[in-house]
Amino acid sequence: MQQQISVITLGVADLSRSRRFYCDGFGWKPVFENREIVFYQMNGLMLGTSLASALETDMQRTGLARPGAFALAHNVPTREAVQPTLDRLSRCGGRILRPADAPPHGGFRGYVADPDEHAWEIAWNPAWPISPEGYVTFSP
Amino acid sequence: MQQQISVITLGVADLSRSRRFYCDGFGWKPVFENREIVFYQMNGLMLGTSLASALETDMQRTGLARPGAFALAHNVPTREAVQPTLDRLSRCGGRILRPADAPPHGGFRGYVADPDEHAWEIAWNPAWPISPEGYVTFSP
Repeated sequence: MQQQISVITLGVADLSRSRRFYCDGFGWKPVFENREIVFYQMNGLMLGTSLASALETDMQRTGLARPGAFALAHNVPTREAVQPTLDRLSRCGGRILRPADAPPHGGFRGYVADPDEHAWEIAWNPAWPISPEGYVTFSP
Repeated sequence: MQQQISVITLGVADLSRSRRFYCDGFGWKPVFENREIVFYQMNGLMLGTSLASALETDMQRTGLARPGAFALAHNVPTREAVQPTLDRLSRCGGRILRPADAPPHGGFRGYVADPDEHAWEIAWNPAWPISPEGYVTFSP
């Protein structure tokens, strides 16, 4: 079966608060939005921020918890861009979890939580090639 | 800033139990694995399954909860493939949350939880084009 993820949907409490983090912090533009969900066109997949109540209804499951046991990563082109990106996200409703430093496996990274406690790693990883379209390829 | 997600990392309790779901259930092949993490090369990004304890250490944050307030989606090429995919994932350590049916916005989908309670939507969505490489483009 194709190794494929079509959508990542994050459950959020307040769409406009979340929108500020993604639009002003990351500088991303939505491709669609209504009263329940905002979609962003990403590198070959969609990111959705959905009211958590709507997500619970759709998956017929209650009790979704935050922070969840997962992290998303966004790569930046230089080591020098990592901390300023964390700082800007922090000014747009985020909260820094780990200031940028060098992990044991190389590169440079820090973590910031979005307004709904979803964790983003902001990383500079010179080992993994990224195409002009943003497609990431594994490299050991 | 580039609208780009480089990695989705899921925190898991048992790498081999998780591996069975992704390798036998989805039929995916890891591109890298060690004692802490398994990486899968996806459509322009990486999926990582990491020991939750290692993820907590890396993000300097404890108390990650499951199920988290998020869902991942995997698209299949036909309506008829949705329920059998859910069933196969269920036989490989998953648990069906919602059997396949038609959502109000069209298409066909169901939800299955992986062995660590991470939710996957298995969807047939004829509205969103998917390239041969698995890249998804939004379409209203």
